[in-house]
Amino acid sequence: MYSELNPPQRILMGPGPSDVAPQVLKAMATPLLGHLDPQFLTIMNDVMEMLREVFQTKNQMTIPMSGTGSAGMETVFVNLVEPGDKVIIGVKGLFGQRMVDVAKRCGAEVIAVEAEWGTIIEPAQIKEALEANPGVKVVALVHAETSTGVLQPLQEISQMTHSAGALFVVDAVTSLGGIEVGIDKNQIDACYSGTQKCLSAPPGLAPVTFSPRAGEVIANRKTPVQSWYLDLSMIQSYWGKERLYHHTAPITMNYALRETLRLVLAEGLENAFTRHQTLGSELQAGLVNMGLKLVVDAEYRLPQLTAVYIPEGVDDLSVRKQLLEKYSIEIGGGLGAFKGKVWRVGLMGYACNRRNVTVFLAALEQVLKEQGYRKP
Amino acid sequence: MYSELNPPQRILMGPGPSDVAPQVLKAMATPLLGHLDPQFLTIMNDVMEMLREVFQTKNQMTIPMSGTGSAGMETVFVNLVEPGDKVIIGVKGLFGQRMVDVAKRCGAEVIAVEAEWGTIIEPAQIKEALEANPGVKVVALVHAETSTGVLQPLQEISQMTHSAGALFVVDAVTSLGGIEVGIDKNQIDACYSGTQKCLSAPPGLAPVTFSPRAGEVIANRKTPVQSWYLDLSMIQSYWGKERLYHHTAPITMNYALRETLRLVLAEGLENAFTRHQTLGSELQAGLVNMGLKLVVDAEYRLPQLTAVYIPEGVDDLSVRKQLLEKYSIEIGGGLGAFKGKVWRVGLMGYACNRRNVTVFLAALEQVLKEQGYRKP
Repeated sequence: MYSELNPPQRILMGPGPSDVAPQVLKAMATPLLGHLDPQFLTIMNDVMEMLREVFQTKNQMTIPMSGTGSAGMETVFVNLVEPGDKVIIGVKGLFGQRMVDVAKRCGAEVIAVEAEWGTIIEPAQIKEALEANPGVKVVALVHAETSTGVLQPLQEISQMTHSAGALFVVDAVTSLGGIEVGIDKNQIDACYSGTQKCLSAPPGLAPVTFSPRAGEVIANRKTPVQSWYLDLSMIQSYWGKERLYHHTAPITMNYALRETLRLVLAEGLENAFTRHQTLGSELQAGLVNMGLKLVVDAEYRLPQLTAVYIPEGVDDLSVRKQLLEKYSIEIGGGLGAFKGKVWRVGLMGYACNRRNVTVFLAALEQVLKEQGYRKP
Repeated sequence: MYSELNPPQRILMGPGPSDVAPQVLKAMATPLLGHLDPQFLTIMNDVMEMLREVFQTKNQMTIPMSGTGSAGMETVFVNLVEPGDKVIIGVKGLFGQRMVDVAKRCGAEVIAVEAEWGTIIEPAQIKEALEANPGVKVVALVHAETSTGVLQPLQEISQMTHSAGALFVVDAVTSLGGIEVGIDKNQIDACYSGTQKCLSAPPGLAPVTFSPRAGEVIANRKTPVQSWYLDLSMIQSYWGKERLYHHTAPITMNYALRETLRLVLAEGLENAFTRHQTLGSELQAGLVNMGLKLVVDAEYRLPQLTAVYIPEGVDDLSVRKQLLEKYSIEIGGGLGAFKGKVWRVGLMGYACNRRNVTVFLAALEQVLKEQGYRKP
């Protein structure tokens, strides 16, 4: 009745998931160990060590949560925030909005600091919010805003956050592995990511890291964490020396994460950053050369996710359908305020290679031509 | 620095994960589709249709949540329960205790109905609790208690729950695919399971199903669901016709689930139940024949998970270590009240075959002999 699984092979150049390397796919076909097997303990240790290297941190509490990137976001807020806590959140796209939603569900008093989609949150805005709201517990920003392609500078806001005695939280879902996140360098207290962007594993795990200072805040909570599944006080005891059973770890996803981290570190983090920067710039130059307009100013433009305005008279869905059906290339549409207005083109992890840039630019040019688009 | 992934090949006869069929492992090596790709929509539809068959239900709201079985538990409670709601929970092992913990974190007023580990919750106990607590919203039971090997009868308690106007919730993590759960037949309003037990896919997804009545309760909530990640009002819009993006679905885990459901239905549910029953009985007879004592009375004994007392003078850890190192067979130790007192032997899904029963019994006999154990 149901046939064997045989999906078409795509080039995944949307906002994620990105293409997964053959070595990682192969690792996923490995027979399973139990989640308390000593051999799996070794794999868990490998994953934690390599995650620390990729996050550029010494944080002991660096583990993959058993859910996708959004579960990572929820992990950070349910563990750090207690009802009534004041939280400043920078909102310049969909994922900042999502943070607000998640934090409110934790009972936070949210101070949303907003900027137009496609721009950054200015340090002065956060400064003002910190001054107007004494006793803020957390300041949270999206590093690489996947809905707009904006790269948010972190350093200055990190400093003012710590001066105010607050914890600095960063969403690195789309940045980790593609551009420098630098947990320790940027003094980030809590950070979450996903496996399916620049790390190029399938979606299903959310790497998180917490500074010792964030760890103390968690240890000194007055109320229980509202999520049992994401309660770090218990999950730490499984990933730590005690090896206390909490929930059954997603074995195969951890195999995939181990393998993909191994590939990232074999290439070298700096080399991976350079590759994303070089090819992202080439892609962006190619789009501009076609007469298209990019959403984000050059200074704050992500290399791994480019938002480009859909030219007038061109049909969004039809172009994406042609790319998918004729060329088997996936790109993303706009979300929220950008729905129907922009395309989002990803160049993440394994998918970030010159062949993909070339074939995508040629395919888009052809499809746009068929839609009657002429370079202005 | 880190070598290629090459773990030893185990026979997984613990409380889960269980062994995964080669076809399912192979499916996990399939290149990824995007989570909004029309071809992935077809796969999602296949998964939902087949899950309904395996759950034996017509419930529209039948989907895999993006986490392990415990995320399924949390999904049910965060969506059905609002602060102050009265919830009766049957506690006869670790997973009943976990339900209490999860429900309390949702603000529920929990009435725990307890029974000794290794026994069932008697319908009369629930009747008494319902009479003593008018206005109960939910009655929740663990169908197959993984910490004790007890099979909880559902029919009678389901009827009294509905007579009292409450919703009937069942944990089917270890039962689904191994014994009949019968959602519609047993009038279960909400049920969650895991992929890594009798369905024999890797851990990472939690199939859930909700009756139309439970769906109404969710639709008429007065407070927001405290978990954004598990909020069904939004997740339904992704799995339903609207296809609204919520979070990135774990693509590869859904490939695995589709493939394993296909295998289960190709064998036939009834045939799978018979296989578990036959081989579970053979395993249990073999243990008794060795002079070992089973924890649960024959009437309420699960075929897929057998708890057996560790004989006096025999070292728990040493036996399990020998089984793992010499025979590459994993069994489980005891949890909670049963720690150090019982072993838990699984025969789930793909691992439930006669070769495994035979090799395990022979290996255990040998290891026990080396430990100086003599049949009484």
